[in-house]
Amino acid sequence: MPPRLWRRPEISESASEVERIAFFSDAVFAIAITLLVVELSVPEEPLADLSAALWERAPKFFAFVLSFLVIGQYWITHHRMFRHVRRYDQILMWLNLVYLLGVAFLPFPTALLGNYFSSPMVGLIYGLSLFAPSTLSAALWHYAKHRSLLDDISPALQREIQLKTLATPVVFLLGAGAALIHIYLSVACWLVLLPLVRLLVRVRPAGA
Amino acid sequence: MPPRLWRRPEISESASEVERIAFFSDAVFAIAITLLVVELSVPEEPLADLSAALWERAPKFFAFVLSFLVIGQYWITHHRMFRHVRRYDQILMWLNLVYLLGVAFLPFPTALLGNYFSSPMVGLIYGLSLFAPSTLSAALWHYAKHRSLLDDISPALQREIQLKTLATPVVFLLGAGAALIHIYLSVACWLVLLPLVRLLVRVRPAGA
Amino acid sequence: MPPRLWRRPEISESASEVERIAFFSDAVFAIAITLLVVELSVPEEPLADLSAALWERAPKFFAFVLSFLVIGQYWITHHRMFRHVRRYDQILMWLNLVYLLGVAFLPFPTALLGNYFSSPMVGLIYGLSLFAPSTLSAALWHYAKHRSLLDDISPALQREIQLKTLATPVVFLLGAGAALIHIYLSVACWLVLLPLVRLLVRVRPAGA
Amino acid sequence: MPPRLWRRPEISESASEVERIAFFSDAVFAIAITLLVVELSVPEEPLADLSAALWERAPKFFAFVLSFLVIGQYWITHHRMFRHVRRYDQILMWLNLVYLLGVAFLPFPTALLGNYFSSPMVGLIYGLSLFAPSTLSAALWHYAKHRSLLDDISPALQREIQLKTLATPVVFLLGAGAALIHIYLSVACWLVLLPLVRLLVRVRPAGA
Repeated sequence: MPPRLWRRPEISESASEVERIAFFSDAVFAIAITLLVVELSVPEEPLADLSAALWERAPKFFAFVLSFLVIGQYWITHHRMFRHVRRYDQILMWLNLVYLLGVAFLPFPTALLGNYFSSPMVGLIYGLSLFAPSTLSAALWHYAKHRSLLDDISPALQREIQLKTLATPVVFLLGAGAALIHIYLSVACWLVLLPLVRLLVRVRPAGA
Repeated sequence: MPPRLWRRPEISESASEVERIAFFSDAVFAIAITLLVVELSVPEEPLADLSAALWERAPKFFAFVLSFLVIGQYWITHHRMFRHVRRYDQILMWLNLVYLLGVAFLPFPTALLGNYFSSPMVGLIYGLSLFAPSTLSAALWHYAKHRSLLDDISPALQREIQLKTLATPVVFLLGAGAALIHIYLSVACWLVLLPLVRLLVRVRPAGA
Repeated sequence: MPPRLWRRPEISESASEVERIAFFSDAVFAIAITLLVVELSVPEEPLADLSAALWERAPKFFAFVLSFLVIGQYWITHHRMFRHVRRYDQILMWLNLVYLLGVAFLPFPTALLGNYFSSPMVGLIYGLSLFAPSTLSAALWHYAKHRSLLDDISPALQREIQLKTLATPVVFLLGAGAALIHIYLSVACWLVLLPLVRLLVRVRPAGA
Repeated sequence: MPPRLWRRPEISESASEVERIAFFSDAVFAIAITLLVVELSVPEEPLADLSAALWERAPKFFAFVLSFLVIGQYWITHHRMFRHVRRYDQILMWLNLVYLLGVAFLPFPTALLGNYFSSPMVGLIYGLSLFAPSTLSAALWHYAKHRSLLDDISPALQREIQLKTLATPVVFLLGAGAALIHIYLSVACWLVLLPLVRLLVRVRPAGA
């Protein structure tokens, strides 16, 4: 029998190593979320022009708060997913890494949005930058489930998370499209649809 | 019976997950506190003008040290609070996240204070930026207590922390007001009143 | 007997301290990987020139993604190595620190590559900057093995890791050389050779 | 009996909380050490001038490597000290915080040294910036010992650490003075004296 050219990546079971992956991810989240402030660019104008300079930065502050809350939401979701991860393999690590690439990139579109607040193109870039990690997050969950890397979770909870991970990218894609009209419409879209998704997903098991 | 449209957020009990929240918060504190140095802006003038350039930065150094100590104090308080947190729900996570938003924002008003040291308006902005997290910190504690997310702490300790979390925002608000006269008055206000609050709060149980 | 002037560094056995080294390393990895985004430099041009400004940044985006994945790969390798480290001494700590120096330096050649994408000299600098940590990583592993700082790993796994740690720097050196022609050739070199090395290393034990 | 106006700060015993302090410190170390790279300032000159631009940055690279190794050494020392800390009080937390203030400040004198490499005044500032944390480190250790916050360590080890914590600031102060002649003399001073101190401290117990 010839040696197999491809082996399925090995699965490792070790609480402390899964923890190290979660820890590394947390650190990337924490740095990305805290780096956002750097893009606010502190005014250096003469004191007389300070009020105007701060007022001009209103879109930057808006983008700062928005991205902080979105990254925070990603972190909470990641936290909730990794609560159930018990094993890992190399593919999960790489999926997680590409996911983190999306998160670590977010300070760039955030600053872009702060600089070109009324541009539909920039709104679209920002929206798509939020869409990407949510897709990868869904991929992460489905891969982990498919490869039995999770602990025993109830079918109801499984369905709830599954529906949520599928619906969230759709909402972010809709929001990215809405940004072509105005970024406020995207925000409204997220503010209305994300809780709605959560609500519907939760009601379902109760109605079963 | 129709499905309930709103469910109270579930409470999770898991030492390792509460730890992950504390860890994420620590990372944000550590990054915000270390990013302060970036705003000092290293001189690039010719060597002959270096002393003057450094001297001009005195307000920046003052603001750096002040904010470092304030964020440090916030971290110590957060540390002391989370020592007693045993359970969490989604609302606690979001309260904590908004609190961290306030902390991660602090490098901006710090740099502003360094640039416009003598401006009463900037002093007020700085003071209010310190006031915000202390209010959220109080909200965090009272929510955790109200929802029974804490371990069993003695009534005396409970009262001590409760009084402290209520008095601290008041002191920061007074300090913000004092900044309208001069930022030094704010600092004096904090240096006198914060230890005084602590003292009074501590004396009380002894007098009971 | 005169006092010995040199003592072998003491070996410490403590899971929690080895963990603290791994943790510190993780933090440096996470910060270096997240700092990459800062070098993308957000456009400030008028909106009409934004598309052109973003398009001009294509090499920066390429360098950002490339370095993110390379640092990610380093982190995964470090993770896999430290899984087996049970003891440490001062030399291991210093080797690890110099290794981290190489990792923390990477945002600089990354930004350089983004600015001078077509320069063979810059390609070489970038390639050599990737070569250095992979050499130190090999040194780390061989020192740990030589000084019996590892847990009991099977001879097959030991040989696999040993071959990999030796072959990886060779590939990075070849890639650095290829950068003298074009950075794309380096990338092709890494994309082809790194998996090939892994494949050959893995097939060997199966053929034994 | 009137209520006491001052109470000794309470001592807390909790492995997980001492760990949280060590963790926060690690994060500050890791960020300060990784932020050093930001000050290297990537060249933007035309390609023809790149070699010259890189060559001009030689002092910056020197300062980067030097500060990386010094902060690394501080981290290792902190690591070794906290290995023995079992309890903590508020004063230890504040001493540690002021120590971290010194560490987090280091990117500033490092960049200063990179910009004004041949200036004796800058050499002195840099040297004193290294001296400060080593003094606070000594204060930390002596306070912890005095207040019995340490675990049971042998008298020999205790004397070794004590001598080292006292001798290190002296060496850094000498180095700062030597910088008035040239920063290379400081570096030579550290390279010769720091290992010498370690040697002498170690030999002593053997000769006892």
